[in-house]
Amino acid sequence: MSNAEKRGILERLNAGEVLVGDGGMTYALEKRGYVKAGPWTPECTVEHPDGVRQIHREFQRAGADIIQAFTFSMDDDLEGDQAKYGTRNINQAACDLAKGVAQEGGAYVAGCICQTAVLYSQGAGKDVVMKKFRNEIEIFIQNNVDILIAEFFGNVEEAEWAVEVIKSTGKPTAITMCIGPEGDRKNVPPGECAVRLARAGADIIGVNCSFDPEKSLETIGLMKEALDKAGLKCHLMVQPVGYHSPDAGIVGFQALPENPFAMEPRTLTRWDVHKYARRAYDMGVRYIGGCCGFEPYHIRAIAEELAPERGRLPAASEKHSSWGEALKHHSVADVRARANRAYWENLKPASGRPFCPSLSGPGGLGQ
Amino acid sequence: MSNAEKRGILERLNAGEVLVGDGGMTYALEKRGYVKAGPWTPECTVEHPDGVRQIHREFQRAGADIIQAFTFSMDDDLEGDQAKYGTRNINQAACDLAKGVAQEGGAYVAGCICQTAVLYSQGAGKDVVMKKFRNEIEIFIQNNVDILIAEFFGNVEEAEWAVEVIKSTGKPTAITMCIGPEGDRKNVPPGECAVRLARAGADIIGVNCSFDPEKSLETIGLMKEALDKAGLKCHLMVQPVGYHSPDAGIVGFQALPENPFAMEPRTLTRWDVHKYARRAYDMGVRYIGGCCGFEPYHIRAIAEELAPERGRLPAASEKHSSWGEALKHHSVADVRARANRAYWENLKPASGRPFCPSLSGPGGLGQ
Amino acid sequence: MSNAEKRGILERLNAGEVLVGDGGMTYALEKRGYVKAGPWTPECTVEHPDGVRQIHREFQRAGADIIQAFTFSMDDDLEGDQAKYGTRNINQAACDLAKGVAQEGGAYVAGCICQTAVLYSQGAGKDVVMKKFRNEIEIFIQNNVDILIAEFFGNVEEAEWAVEVIKSTGKPTAITMCIGPEGDRKNVPPGECAVRLARAGADIIGVNCSFDPEKSLETIGLMKEALDKAGLKCHLMVQPVGYHSPDAGIVGFQALPENPFAMEPRTLTRWDVHKYARRAYDMGVRYIGGCCGFEPYHIRAIAEELAPERGRLPAASEKHSSWGEALKHHSVADVRARANRAYWENLKPASGRPFCPSLSGPGGLGQ
Amino acid sequence: MSNAEKRGILERLNAGEVLVGDGGMTYALEKRGYVKAGPWTPECTVEHPDGVRQIHREFQRAGADIIQAFTFSMDDDLEGDQAKYGTRNINQAACDLAKGVAQEGGAYVAGCICQTAVLYSQGAGKDVVMKKFRNEIEIFIQNNVDILIAEFFGNVEEAEWAVEVIKSTGKPTAITMCIGPEGDRKNVPPGECAVRLARAGADIIGVNCSFDPEKSLETIGLMKEALDKAGLKCHLMVQPVGYHSPDAGIVGFQALPENPFAMEPRTLTRWDVHKYARRAYDMGVRYIGGCCGFEPYHIRAIAEELAPERGRLPAASEKHSSWGEALKHHSVADVRARANRAYWENLKPASGRPFCPSLSGPGGLGQ
Repeated sequence: MSNAEKRGILERLNAGEVLVGDGGMTYALEKRGYVKAGPWTPECTVEHPDGVRQIHREFQRAGADIIQAFTFSMDDDLEGDQAKYGTRNINQAACDLAKGVAQEGGAYVAGCICQTAVLYSQGAGKDVVMKKFRNEIEIFIQNNVDILIAEFFGNVEEAEWAVEVIKSTGKPTAITMCIGPEGDRKNVPPGECAVRLARAGADIIGVNCSFDPEKSLETIGLMKEALDKAGLKCHLMVQPVGYHSPDAGIVGFQALPENPFAMEPRTLTRWDVHKYARRAYDMGVRYIGGCCGFEPYHIRAIAEELAPERGRLPAASEKHSSWGEALKHHSVADVRARANRAYWENLKPASGRPFCPSLSGPGGLGQ
Repeated sequence: MSNAEKRGILERLNAGEVLVGDGGMTYALEKRGYVKAGPWTPECTVEHPDGVRQIHREFQRAGADIIQAFTFSMDDDLEGDQAKYGTRNINQAACDLAKGVAQEGGAYVAGCICQTAVLYSQGAGKDVVMKKFRNEIEIFIQNNVDILIAEFFGNVEEAEWAVEVIKSTGKPTAITMCIGPEGDRKNVPPGECAVRLARAGADIIGVNCSFDPEKSLETIGLMKEALDKAGLKCHLMVQPVGYHSPDAGIVGFQALPENPFAMEPRTLTRWDVHKYARRAYDMGVRYIGGCCGFEPYHIRAIAEELAPERGRLPAASEKHSSWGEALKHHSVADVRARANRAYWENLKPASGRPFCPSLSGPGGLGQ
Repeated sequence: MSNAEKRGILERLNAGEVLVGDGGMTYALEKRGYVKAGPWTPECTVEHPDGVRQIHREFQRAGADIIQAFTFSMDDDLEGDQAKYGTRNINQAACDLAKGVAQEGGAYVAGCICQTAVLYSQGAGKDVVMKKFRNEIEIFIQNNVDILIAEFFGNVEEAEWAVEVIKSTGKPTAITMCIGPEGDRKNVPPGECAVRLARAGADIIGVNCSFDPEKSLETIGLMKEALDKAGLKCHLMVQPVGYHSPDAGIVGFQALPENPFAMEPRTLTRWDVHKYARRAYDMGVRYIGGCCGFEPYHIRAIAEELAPERGRLPAASEKHSSWGEALKHHSVADVRARANRAYWENLKPASGRPFCPSLSGPGGLGQ
Repeated sequence: MSNAEKRGILERLNAGEVLVGDGGMTYALEKRGYVKAGPWTPECTVEHPDGVRQIHREFQRAGADIIQAFTFSMDDDLEGDQAKYGTRNINQAACDLAKGVAQEGGAYVAGCICQTAVLYSQGAGKDVVMKKFRNEIEIFIQNNVDILIAEFFGNVEEAEWAVEVIKSTGKPTAITMCIGPEGDRKNVPPGECAVRLARAGADIIGVNCSFDPEKSLETIGLMKEALDKAGLKCHLMVQPVGYHSPDAGIVGFQALPENPFAMEPRTLTRWDVHKYARRAYDMGVRYIGGCCGFEPYHIRAIAEELAPERGRLPAASEKHSSWGEALKHHSVADVRARANRAYWENLKPASGRPFCPSLSGPGGLGQ
């Protein structure tokens, strides 16, 4: 499809379409051997472009309509490998990789910025922070991305500044905060956050990272209620983590004692994702994706659950039949009997870990 | 390194070296969108070679010394995509992909055959079954693989026939059975199986698939005891599944109610793999890898645990510091405090699923 | 001690003393074979006085300062055994048994009334309901009990009427509601409930039944906050159930799928009770007891935890040393090593039920 | 019923009747405040006869056909309270209490001896040990008990000596060992133990204490198989602990980290006991009771499950309807829906403790 024919993101959202986001790059690439947990830096766009390209492809194949370039808000004074390659080279490579894959499959490319690591919290004012955001998005403007997303914001004030910067570019403006139902770092409730961001000009508002689907949708519900009450029209967006974390407390999943190297038992199944996608859709969310922990098959589950509404299955569904139907061909009779929706929808999966608890709470502080 | 310089697998095992196997292709590629659960067929070697090449690379980068070509023992009369491509084309593509990656990194290429799906169990005799094995390995001989592995055998008799066929080719001969401590499908104990396979000429004997590391090593222990008692010298090999399954019963993890679409909570952490690798080494096993559920980072954990013995770290360790040391650079203080071995070694990870049990048992039949 | 010498309950509470309540009669006597789950009726005071007397004794020996006569608000038109014995006979026997035991040990006797089963909820007005309460307490006045407790009230309005009736008798007036932090059946918040009950004349206000210690103390906290804000002085009282029920929802533990015949795995340990008693004390609660599920040894744990504040240990502590000290004399070495506080305080007890979940939620509706 | 009319225990067992044993005195009386955990000594028969009499009554009312006098094999040189009262007085009081209650309800009285605490294991020979047994049973002979039970034997050799002593008295001779499927302390397998005890003259053989119903019945199965193979006819007896302990290892539940003060979550429900009683019966066991952790309602569950075979319900069933039928009268609709067998039989009860594991293993050593 040529760019000329491609309808815009907002055009499609305004028409009531559902767009599927991609999943979590850092956690997935860490397990594939390309990103280091801790600094989480994306120099692999230069070092191992094949690895990055491949996971972009898998997300697109799974149904993602938007591919986020694998950049990261990076300061100029970073050390080590990043310094060696240069922020600009890393980010340009990220844009190239995302665009290349998007062209294969017709997806949009998103450029993303995050909250400043320390600037804002150490008191740098609006001018300083906005200047930094402007520097960061320059490369996305040059590469003519389809949308700009400001994500992982813990303070609504800084988020407003990001919206202001992005809005001035004329690009579709999406903003997601990493907050739960308790609100932002200064206790501004989600509803108030959403209203302020809408008034700042955001086209798409929501949450990403930090919380699991259940908590994230609870937060979205509070945002929507406030937007409705204020008579503001905005598209809603959600990209939760792919880990069950009812015990994550106020900070979010980062503080769980299992993070980042023992999150396996908390990982969502594809059926958990089906339920999440349906609930998000029913709440009116139309930009539905994932963050840390969402692998390609989780994104496929979103696209499969919403296939009736979207009118299509993703490419990767050629190797997947909804609700386990293909198990009819399994060599073991017991497994063949699982080729139906009721089985997987009702299963309460065991951990195989009887010596472990089911909750641990932030920092391992329990009951 | 030229082939001429490359020392052989048996040469290295005889010298006491540890070789690291690769992980599970089918389960990993299913989640990446390239393999269908149920038939589990590998036509992706033709359809999506990039996807297969990439995961081979990740396993090699994680430390795998042997790359198993992603073939599958297939019958001529298969339907659908496989028929379209032809078994021969699929398997030749598999050999090409494995060899291509192996040449980049100096790994060995393995050709694998499995037990016959129905021939043996329906009473086809030795001649018929051996003829099928001979047909299957022909392509591996033509591609001059470094080793032939007969894996996933449930009956020692059929396994002996496979060993006989492979041994006649002059290639290093490895045989793994998919049995637990209770023995093979006809209740032949693991020790007797091992002795019979050694007498049939196997160079490397062990287990793969069906059971988790704990059960698999229990089985290996019984094999070793019997081999020692019989005065037989063989190398030992283990490739367990990457899922905790103490409740798998006699059949193995396939019969667990969570298989194959809700195994997430059972997935091994990298620290579980460290313990497994150490225990396997201490028992005398020198070919240590994984099967279904083992992702690249699990293989890296084997290579990192045995780095002192092997005298080297795998390439992917450039993005990983053993036991979480790189968390020193994490942005959250609580997470920085996890940058040490004691923390991860002792952690009992929570599932975040308080409404789920910790065991379910085969077929979901519980206590 | 003669009655003349005995200081009154309010006198002691006003002086800052802690009074220990008794535990749950119905659930304990059901397991001993004297009360039928479902109707939960107390005709055993007539049928098996020895059984009732014994458990009163055990509670008193465990440290209970108040013995609640085992009556139950009963209508005249009951069928079966109750009709045979007559409500009046059953309740007189209850008073006799409580008084007899209290005289042995110096405890107070409480007469209790509950919310009307259906009168109030079916719209009977204040006059009808208050008349019923007056009828019910008549026997307690004749038996000159030391305190009247109106307990298990789900609606603050009906609770106010009960307070009004009791207050008019001149007896110390205690009122406990069976509500959680969400408030009463009509969503009146706990703080508002407490303020209204204080203004209605209650001397002692709190919660009983329905929720576990954690939830109950959360509710008490809300009550105390509101009373403080309103400048009202009242004594606080708490008698939670002896079952962990974080998943009890709004209705309370009655709706848990395990109630009433499979609550064993939820039962508090004595160490859970130690923590509860300490937290209650620290919050300012001075009438601390238990409800369904509290057995004599749970009451002893309250009395032992607060022994420093109370200046005495209960009689039953002659057969118990705090924090397991007597295990020094156990015949098994491993058990002897448990003769210390740190061991029991930190233990996370296993259920021995790996096939069961840790939460189930009201009505068994889970995640 | 006069003694003359009463048929003997063996007579009834020989006729194929099922006899129900009583439950665990020490653990139950510890929670009631009369026995100290650690020394577990029964001086309460002198100090608090009412408490002991009451629990005997409750067990008898629950269906127990045999009441074990609450003595304990005590050495002459004990200190403290026991020394004060004298072993003889304590044990005579125990006989009086058991006989008194038994006469009310028609039960048999059993006198019991245990393995010597240290004599045997320190190498005292047959003569010394048998002399001690003879001294201990003297009081039971004087009180003309109906049966003598040697229980809690860890070594079959010492058990044989006990059988020899008891057999010589002419009383029915029962012997139970505290062993699991792995056999006695010196690894004599259960089958061999049973055969040796039968040949030594035991009328009734089985296991008590240390293991849960599942493990205990597994042991009984091995005993029965060996007895059958040897052509020996003996009655079988089982008195397991009332705690789920699949992780108890070889030593038994005593070594579990929760023992003795945090066993609540492991406690059997009445429905667990129904299953146990049925399975025991189906295996041919005809003396079915409980040990530590079995409360009166657990014993009632045995008697109710086997009511069809026994032709009668126990007295306590007047306050219990099998499988929750009386819940039809509960005030909460959700609870009324539980008034049926399928509900309770299939329920997997939650612990309400999401921060706790489901298994802990002996000494807390886990996976």
